Amino acid sequence: MADSFASRFAAVRSKYGPLAWGLDPSAEILEAWGVGDTPDGLDRFADITLSAATGTVGLVKLQSAFYERHGWRGFRTLQRLIAEARDAGLLVIVDAKRGDVGTTNDAYAEAFLGADAPLGADALTVHPYLGVKAMGAFVARADESGSCLLVVTRSSNAEGRPVQTARNRWGRSVEEELLVEIGELNAQLAPGEIGPVGAVVGPTHMEPALDLAAVGGIFLAPGVGAQGATATDVARVFASCPDRVIPSASRSLLCDGPDRNRLADTAKALAFELGEALPV
Amino acid sequence: MADSFASRFAAVRSKYGPLAWGLDPSAEILEAWGVGDTPDGLDRFADITLSAATGTVGLVKLQSAFYERHGWRGFRTLQRLIAEARDAGLLVIVDAKRGDVGTTNDAYAEAFLGADAPLGADALTVHPYLGVKAMGAFVARADESGSCLLVVTRSSNAEGRPVQTARNRWGRSVEEELLVEIGELNAQLAPGEIGPVGAVVGPTHMEPALDLAAVGGIFLAPGVGAQGATATDVARVFASCPDRVIPSASRSLLCDGPDRNRLADTAKALAFELGEALPV
Repeated sequence: MADSFASRFAAVRSKYGPLAWGLDPSAEILEAWGVGDTPDGLDRFADITLSAATGTVGLVKLQSAFYERHGWRGFRTLQRLIAEARDAGLLVIVDAKRGDVGTTNDAYAEAFLGADAPLGADALTVHPYLGVKAMGAFVARADESGSCLLVVTRSSNAEGRPVQTARNRWGRSVEEELLVEIGELNAQLAPGEIGPVGAVVGPTHMEPALDLAAVGGIFLAPGVGAQGATATDVARVFASCPDRVIPSASRSLLCDGPDRNRLADTAKALAFELGEALPV
Repeated sequence: MADSFASRFAAVRSKYGPLAWGLDPSAEILEAWGVGDTPDGLDRFADITLSAATGTVGLVKLQSAFYERHGWRGFRTLQRLIAEARDAGLLVIVDAKRGDVGTTNDAYAEAFLGADAPLGADALTVHPYLGVKAMGAFVARADESGSCLLVVTRSSNAEGRPVQTARNRWGRSVEEELLVEIGELNAQLAPGEIGPVGAVVGPTHMEPALDLAAVGGIFLAPGVGAQGATATDVARVFASCPDRVIPSASRSLLCDGPDRNRLADTAKALAFELGEALPV
């Protein structure tokens, strides 16, 4: 059995800090960098950011949408970047937010998790709208391969709050219920340790407070920087489990490109700031 | 401005019936057909099913997961199949269930909707967990290009019901609230007509009944056949708008392959049965 994602995260965290650098090649970034909003420009972006991230941060987060914009050639770049970043020692989170009924989730799990997966990542984000209980293959593959399933629970945007705060018949909100279900899975799979199922919890919303320590998993906290959350916000939301949170930032770091050294310096400074704000 | 998806659906429906044939190349199907669970086998599957579907049904539904399983080569097959099926006169629904924050949704919309989109489809399924109000670019592109956005609302599986039936502070369930929001969008964009925003509503759950006629959009009803719903179930759930529902079936049709004629005969029979059950 492979080392758990949690233990690999702890290792890179102690060296580089907890930041996941979001490598999101939006049209605006590709144009601003002068590489062109084309599949070739995307490949250039991948090469530049991989070089800047290696030895600078511990994790990268790839937002699938910005690769899919370029069709199959963009998907090929995504696949290549996942493999090359992992080879370079980076932990790779693929932010693809997949999610479907059980048999279809099996297919997504085979695409993104495990040694035999073509886009095999260290962690994958998934949507819970069709139920955590439909994620059997995702959970099993994450557990077996030492990767991590990150269930979108509380998003960083305001528009998602109406769905996420609706309440079930026992008075628990959708986001609270999901965290309970995830906690139960982790308690079964990794009793007393940090399990393979994590959650995406946006640090842009403070209220209502969530019982994060009980989840027994890793958290992805998107929305740092351009989306408005600061290191202090992250520290406040994850005060009960500062060692288990991966804050991610993208636009606020990429706007310093395409110079490799400037990119790396900006990312390193934010990774350090987040490490200070989130003492282990 | 392009013809609306609703009018193109009405046209193919009158000729072939309302069925969307789900072209879902699972590992089991590829093996059973003897084409092999490989990117080449996937290409063979695409060629066989496109040939069988053309002139047989009006719509096909491609489940992205089964193409992504084969990495970028599978994504290339998906892109090719979308283009070739549309060239052959079929309406193509891409069942990708994408969904994210606003700026990321913009990128997904550019991937899947509109004449300039590399995977430009007639309709795309999307996840609502981050909010219908975060789908501005999806809605605008669907409206401008005469395509259709299908928001997952009530899924065909049981595991999704806890999230979908949770209630907001006004006592409306998540699925009810989504249908109201979709209805408002359609009323703005296409007053008095069928608008560009539709919903996925699984016909496997009868209760509670939903006010579907008020939505002013098209419905995708997955889960016919292997997932348990019958033509009678579909007719019952969509009794208030039988002309606006696209039932889809996959496994129950594909198990008759790989013989082209047998596949076509089985699909044609189900399309006819559904047309009879859903009189316009």
